[in-house]
Amino acid sequence: MEYRIIKSPSHGTLEILARRKGSGSAVKLEDIDAIGLVQGRLIEMVCAADVAEKTVGVTVEDIRGSCPQHMIMLAIFGDTVSVETALKEIQRREKEGNVEW
Amino acid sequence: MEYRIIKSPSHGTLEILARRKGSGSAVKLEDIDAIGLVQGRLIEMVCAADVAEKTVGVTVEDIRGSCPQHMIMLAIFGDTVSVETALKEIQRREKEGNVEW
Amino acid sequence: MEYRIIKSPSHGTLEILARRKGSGSAVKLEDIDAIGLVQGRLIEMVCAADVAEKTVGVTVEDIRGSCPQHMIMLAIFGDTVSVETALKEIQRREKEGNVEW
Amino acid sequence: MEYRIIKSPSHGTLEILARRKGSGSAVKLEDIDAIGLVQGRLIEMVCAADVAEKTVGVTVEDIRGSCPQHMIMLAIFGDTVSVETALKEIQRREKEGNVEW
Amino acid sequence: MEYRIIKSPSHGTLEILARRKGSGSAVKLEDIDAIGLVQGRLIEMVCAADVAEKTVGVTVEDIRGSCPQHMIMLAIFGDTVSVETALKEIQRREKEGNVEW
Amino acid sequence: MEYRIIKSPSHGTLEILARRKGSGSAVKLEDIDAIGLVQGRLIEMVCAADVAEKTVGVTVEDIRGSCPQHMIMLAIFGDTVSVETALKEIQRREKEGNVEW
Repeated sequence: MEYRIIKSPSHGTLEILARRKGSGSAVKLEDIDAIGLVQGRLIEMVCAADVAEKTVGVTVEDIRGSCPQHMIMLAIFGDTVSVETALKEIQRREKEGNVEW
Repeated sequence: MEYRIIKSPSHGTLEILARRKGSGSAVKLEDIDAIGLVQGRLIEMVCAADVAEKTVGVTVEDIRGSCPQHMIMLAIFGDTVSVETALKEIQRREKEGNVEW
Repeated sequence: MEYRIIKSPSHGTLEILARRKGSGSAVKLEDIDAIGLVQGRLIEMVCAADVAEKTVGVTVEDIRGSCPQHMIMLAIFGDTVSVETALKEIQRREKEGNVEW
Repeated sequence: MEYRIIKSPSHGTLEILARRKGSGSAVKLEDIDAIGLVQGRLIEMVCAADVAEKTVGVTVEDIRGSCPQHMIMLAIFGDTVSVETALKEIQRREKEGNVEW
Repeated sequence: MEYRIIKSPSHGTLEILARRKGSGSAVKLEDIDAIGLVQGRLIEMVCAADVAEKTVGVTVEDIRGSCPQHMIMLAIFGDTVSVETALKEIQRREKEGNVEW
Repeated sequence: MEYRIIKSPSHGTLEILARRKGSGSAVKLEDIDAIGLVQGRLIEMVCAADVAEKTVGVTVEDIRGSCPQHMIMLAIFGDTVSVETALKEIQRREKEGNVEW
């Protein structure tokens, strides 16, 4: 998995992500303080999405348009501290491993 | 093949999977206790789907990737014990090998 | 090429394949005793489809959804003995080689 | 590039190819004696199509893979001798190299 | 990541990019002095787009590849000095690394 | 990058290219003396298209259908001498390198 953070994203960057998000729900573009990006294989991304969703204060979207096709990207929108918390938690969980049955 | 399990999945995670599932049938999102994820090649996924379908108490969905025509992951919905049983059975069958004619 | 056989396939497995088959013609799902699966490159699959089609008692479908895109999958529907005969014949022809001009 | 020839192709094999061909023009399925198949990269396929088109007695079709926008295989329809002539000429031209400016 | 710059782009080149851009907004083709091109993985492209957007005097577009759902290249339109400034800034940020939480 | 030239292209070859070209504009198929083909990554192709467009006497089209998806192909239509001039110029510019800011 790969991680990036964009602070004070430009309007154009938010629009590129908005055009490619999977859900129809509208994230209010003007309220975004930071974007966390996570790219990896589909199975990892679904787990990462779940970890991020359980973090307070962020909105999670899956973004279309990765190449090769078994890779996808998550965008995590929110205030800088919340986005950083979500990214750290995804990294922590990835290191621990997820399979436990 | 790769395996993950998500316990008490968030609403957003269920929605990401719902948007990408192949079938039109609606899994009731509020009843999901756990999700098993299995990623691999198409021929492996079809065999794994059959093994999972024969497990009591789970619902199996094929999940698309970036291209609508690709099926690259299985999601197995159900209570935690049933999902774990299905994942274990898929792993056991994979080790044994499947070809027997 | 890779081969699998599913005996007494579940209803859900048949539906995953039915959703992804290339032809519009309806295979009667309730009559299926076994499914043979063959995955490989497009050129191999067309030859394998021809071998399978010439076997008595099976129906052959090309299945969409492989990744990478130059790979496709065939599903061979029929009674167990016929499906096994078709798969063995495909393997035999593959070993012999096909080019003979 | 890879080459195969199918003699007396089954009806189902012709239908798989018919469903995936690029052109709208109808090859009469009942008249086909043999099919030559050529798989390779796009730039090679376009050159091979031109060589085949200049062979007497064959019809050339470009065949799509899983994604509708991909052309990954040529099918050359005709009587056995003409199809073999076209395949041999494609191989001869490939060995000689094509670039000559 | 890979970088190119096209000075005084031809009309046909601008049209190829216009046909493949993600946004609906029209860049005035006649006003373009130079085009900067940046190709890389999706997560890198989104960060590069944000860096370019924060440069004065350029317009940033995401460019699709063969599949409509893929974004694989950025085109940065503007006067030569501004495009060069944007490309240099993207390179500088890439070397520094972007992750800082 | 890879290069090919087809002299006196057949009608069928021109039609395969015509079906896959990106622009809606009609190249008059009957007037084509030679076709130059160039295959490579998207960023290289956009630069090559610009070089070709600046050559007198040729028409440049981007052709869909390459696999893998980050590869595309250009077709350069014209009289043999002009097409050869365009291909040589693309090769010369590729050797020199393009980045100069």
